[in-house]
Amino acid sequence: LDYQHVQVPFEITLWIMLASLAKIGFHLYNKLPSVVPESCLLIFVGLIMGGIIYGLNDRSPPVMDSDIFFLYLLPPIVLDAGYFMPSRPFFENIGTILLYAVVGTIWNVFGIGFSLYGICQVRAFRLQDVSLLHNLLFGSLIAAVDPVAVLAVFEEIHVNEKLHILVFGESLLNDAVTVVLYKLFRSFCEMPTIKSMDVFAGVGKFFVVGLGGVLVGLSFGFTAAFTTRFTKDIRVIEPLFVFLYSYLSYLTAEMFHLSGIVAIIACAMGMKRYVEANISLKSHTTVKYFMKMWSSVSDTLIFIFLGVSTIGENHEWNWPYICFTVIFCLIWRALGVLVLTFFVNRFHVNTITSKDQFIIAYGGLRGAICFSLVFLLPEFHRKKLFIAATTVVILFTVFVQGMTIRPLVDLLAVKRKRESAPMVGEQIHIRFLDHLLAGIEDISGHWGQYYWKDKLEYFNSKYLQKILLREYDQPKSSIVLLYEKLERKHAIELAEAGQLGHGPAHPSLLGPTFLCSSNDRTVRTDQKLEDTQNPDVLDNMQEILARNLYRIRRMGPAYNRHTLPGESEPSEHAKEILILRHKSL
Amino acid sequence: LDYQHVQVPFEITLWIMLASLAKIGFHLYNKLPSVVPESCLLIFVGLIMGGIIYGLNDRSPPVMDSDIFFLYLLPPIVLDAGYFMPSRPFFENIGTILLYAVVGTIWNVFGIGFSLYGICQVRAFRLQDVSLLHNLLFGSLIAAVDPVAVLAVFEEIHVNEKLHILVFGESLLNDAVTVVLYKLFRSFCEMPTIKSMDVFAGVGKFFVVGLGGVLVGLSFGFTAAFTTRFTKDIRVIEPLFVFLYSYLSYLTAEMFHLSGIVAIIACAMGMKRYVEANISLKSHTTVKYFMKMWSSVSDTLIFIFLGVSTIGENHEWNWPYICFTVIFCLIWRALGVLVLTFFVNRFHVNTITSKDQFIIAYGGLRGAICFSLVFLLPEFHRKKLFIAATTVVILFTVFVQGMTIRPLVDLLAVKRKRESAPMVGEQIHIRFLDHLLAGIEDISGHWGQYYWKDKLEYFNSKYLQKILLREYDQPKSSIVLLYEKLERKHAIELAEAGQLGHGPAHPSLLGPTFLCSSNDRTVRTDQKLEDTQNPDVLDNMQEILARNLYRIRRMGPAYNRHTLPGESEPSEHAKEILILRHKSL
Repeated sequence: LDYQHVQVPFEITLWIMLASLAKIGFHLYNKLPSVVPESCLLIFVGLIMGGIIYGLNDRSPPVMDSDIFFLYLLPPIVLDAGYFMPSRPFFENIGTILLYAVVGTIWNVFGIGFSLYGICQVRAFRLQDVSLLHNLLFGSLIAAVDPVAVLAVFEEIHVNEKLHILVFGESLLNDAVTVVLYKLFRSFCEMPTIKSMDVFAGVGKFFVVGLGGVLVGLSFGFTAAFTTRFTKDIRVIEPLFVFLYSYLSYLTAEMFHLSGIVAIIACAMGMKRYVEANISLKSHTTVKYFMKMWSSVSDTLIFIFLGVSTIGENHEWNWPYICFTVIFCLIWRALGVLVLTFFVNRFHVNTITSKDQFIIAYGGLRGAICFSLVFLLPEFHRKKLFIAATTVVILFTVFVQGMTIRPLVDLLAVKRKRESAPMVGEQIHIRFLDHLLAGIEDISGHWGQYYWKDKLEYFNSKYLQKILLREYDQPKSSIVLLYEKLERKHAIELAEAGQLGHGPAHPSLLGPTFLCSSNDRTVRTDQKLEDTQNPDVLDNMQEILARNLYRIRRMGPAYNRHTLPGESEPSEHAKEILILRHKSL
Repeated sequence: LDYQHVQVPFEITLWIMLASLAKIGFHLYNKLPSVVPESCLLIFVGLIMGGIIYGLNDRSPPVMDSDIFFLYLLPPIVLDAGYFMPSRPFFENIGTILLYAVVGTIWNVFGIGFSLYGICQVRAFRLQDVSLLHNLLFGSLIAAVDPVAVLAVFEEIHVNEKLHILVFGESLLNDAVTVVLYKLFRSFCEMPTIKSMDVFAGVGKFFVVGLGGVLVGLSFGFTAAFTTRFTKDIRVIEPLFVFLYSYLSYLTAEMFHLSGIVAIIACAMGMKRYVEANISLKSHTTVKYFMKMWSSVSDTLIFIFLGVSTIGENHEWNWPYICFTVIFCLIWRALGVLVLTFFVNRFHVNTITSKDQFIIAYGGLRGAICFSLVFLLPEFHRKKLFIAATTVVILFTVFVQGMTIRPLVDLLAVKRKRESAPMVGEQIHIRFLDHLLAGIEDISGHWGQYYWKDKLEYFNSKYLQKILLREYDQPKSSIVLLYEKLERKHAIELAEAGQLGHGPAHPSLLGPTFLCSSNDRTVRTDQKLEDTQNPDVLDNMQEILARNLYRIRRMGPAYNRHTLPGESEPSEHAKEILILRHKSL
């Protein structure tokens, strides 16, 4: 028996196996998932495993090492989150999300830090040796909402899309703030004196860390898209690039002390659209499936490891400090959400209701990120107290809040997610409204969300698509793609029901009627009609739409040294419309 | 900049990225793959990389560590090979393959070992200090044909299926022999005296290592199949089990000093059939795709690493020894193939032609397994000579033999692989012949291949399927599955050409003609006809086939104490046939 030789991969495989089997066992009884969130059960499994290992070895295994967590377990989950991020609600609410993530997190850090420092002044609690800086450092790691925990709970309760994206987006984007504040306070703890310069440098770092992460992510994302242009002959390694480049973006960002989470999200969101168009359908299935599988396993492992690592002798149980930490976490988050939402609602038509505010505050779960950060703290005499407090906060939020949030959502009758996907009609309507709003913003000279979106779309189709897509000349609109997808699905259903016609069976052959009367000119009467007809109709429809749709005016900057505003453009536009109308007549 | 922190995953990712990009680059120019095998080019890339790194660092990176190779790079390739192993030609030629793998390898080991010992006795070469045991040890690692190298070359030259499986099967199954001989000679080298007992124990070990590997593999394979019975509610982690269990089988076998390669192949072949039936279609696409991707990357990495590791100061260039090693490798393999094939051909109708024999001998490529084994040798003063000789043999076989084998195959007009998949008619024919041959073997009392196959199939449907499959009661025959697959493919093609009929378009509605006239009884005239008709026809066909096919007689042992041979069974059979005939009339 030669166990030493295979130990590392063997134990990793066994842990993954345990996680997968726990997941299967959890789903075997249908009643269980509806009562207890999976994360709670997994932590429970971890606690049992940890107890067994601790009983046998007298020390808990170092499974939740912060390196393991940050380098191997977290990236798959964040990649999955970024890749499947619903981009429309995300960008529609980006302002609110950023406000919660940046201002909200800072508010929480300082709120929790200062109030805990107040508690430390109470002589009876014997905590006078915990300095303000240490409290702030602790605040910086305990304040951040955890994406893994939020995802695990919110995926099960199906609240409406906006609420979900607000909490989830915040939990992802606060990483930049957490990284900066945590590192700032940690270096302050080690410095003899703090100059005001250092504080200002800290503020500047926010932007560097966040925007740097976005930049790193986007550049890797576009490189990934560019690479997949050349994989036509070697389809089998296509999925690899999605994983390799996004992981590299994460590692590179971490290497330069930027926000890895922000980088990987930017990378995934940046490349998705182009990669999807370049790689084959089967490669894409593999990418999607494997990403889900990987993040699901990572997620399971994180909760089990959380349980395992809780067992041990790392804790100092000073109950006043621990209890007040939990209370302050709840209070400051609730206050922060109330205040910030007040400002958000003043500037938005579509306000956040008080029910939604409650769920946002209540859904601020803490998880494995805090846990890993607290173990990364430099050694000092009260580290074990911080570890204990963090463990209790995590267990409290995951167990108490995680288990009660579903009944609360039911009780408050929070607006749920719509069950069905939007109809094609709705989609067309939404797109039409986008154009309309871009037009209105254009006319009113307001540089709003739709203006920027339109600008971005123009830049995309003018430059990016030509560089990043293999066949950039005829990118199909999403409506046409949707139509094709529906056709394919319908065909498979027909085939499975055994109703597929093998002969010339297209309805259009039964008579001279066509769906689109404007295509009469293109009807060819030769015998190859049946082969080419429908693509022709499609192309023609696209062409007509492209030719006849009024192109949205590109707006120059409001002030221009060389032209008077509205000098030449309106007349050109009017002419353009006239020409189009003449043509169509 | 904090490179230390991310170094390990970053460098791994970069190596994989390099491998993938090299692969893309290789396929960008269409002419390249037709002239040079990919493996040669990858080694070349590795040599350049190794040169650069060596120039910068003054030492080559430890990328081709034997642990890395055996624990991480080899398993994916072997898993892929086992999972996609064409089982019919493999089992049809299993006897020949085993003969080549076991007897052939032993022949080569002793042949090369003893002749090199002879060379060592020549005073002019200054090799007298290399003992017989060391030569045999070297022979045991250099004799084995390498599956990775064989696969890389043979996948490109498309020889006929039998020839391919003979070389490839040998390269996989000789692992057991190599492991035993290598470990045996290594322990002999360290022992002061060798008793005859030890030699006999070595012979016994062959069976333990090989059969033990099969046992470990099959048990993990069946556990994997059993596990996938319960993944219905959690489709997303299904693909994971295929990888986890096969990797565990490999690691477990390695742990007990059994043949890991044999174990993982047994595991993959054992589980494939059941796993495929249990998991969803998309999961299966992911499994297949990911396996191919992984093995492709592993394969690329192995050849690049081979190149990288060749650069360095590990070599002792004693040219006579090195040249004679290459020559003896060629001669002994050619002789071995000639002698063994002579015996094989005496017992088979379908003989191996002399052209095939030449390709089998010439296709005996050496690769990364030898390379890793030679680095695993215990330190002694001539280790660097062995490393040099192994490197030269590998480069010679991969470059010279690998590059000339394709022209030789063309020149000799070796029978090629058929381009098209067998037609449905052929498949039915083959299956019919199987039944016929099982019947003939049954009648003639010969326990041949078909008898055992039939027996296995019976055991499978009676016990294994009930335990391992989720829905075991109605397993569809492969013909019906093929039909469904073709239907689905056809439907997608129709949808993509835009010819899908949306109305009632089945040809059978156009008239009362049916494909299968014996189904007239089942034609229902109600309006739901169009929905249920085709599945009905299918079910009915299956039912008729199942009812009317003459069940093959299960043969008892040829000698039975309680019954006279052929006592009661013939009359029962005759009766059965009569009843069937009456029914059908």
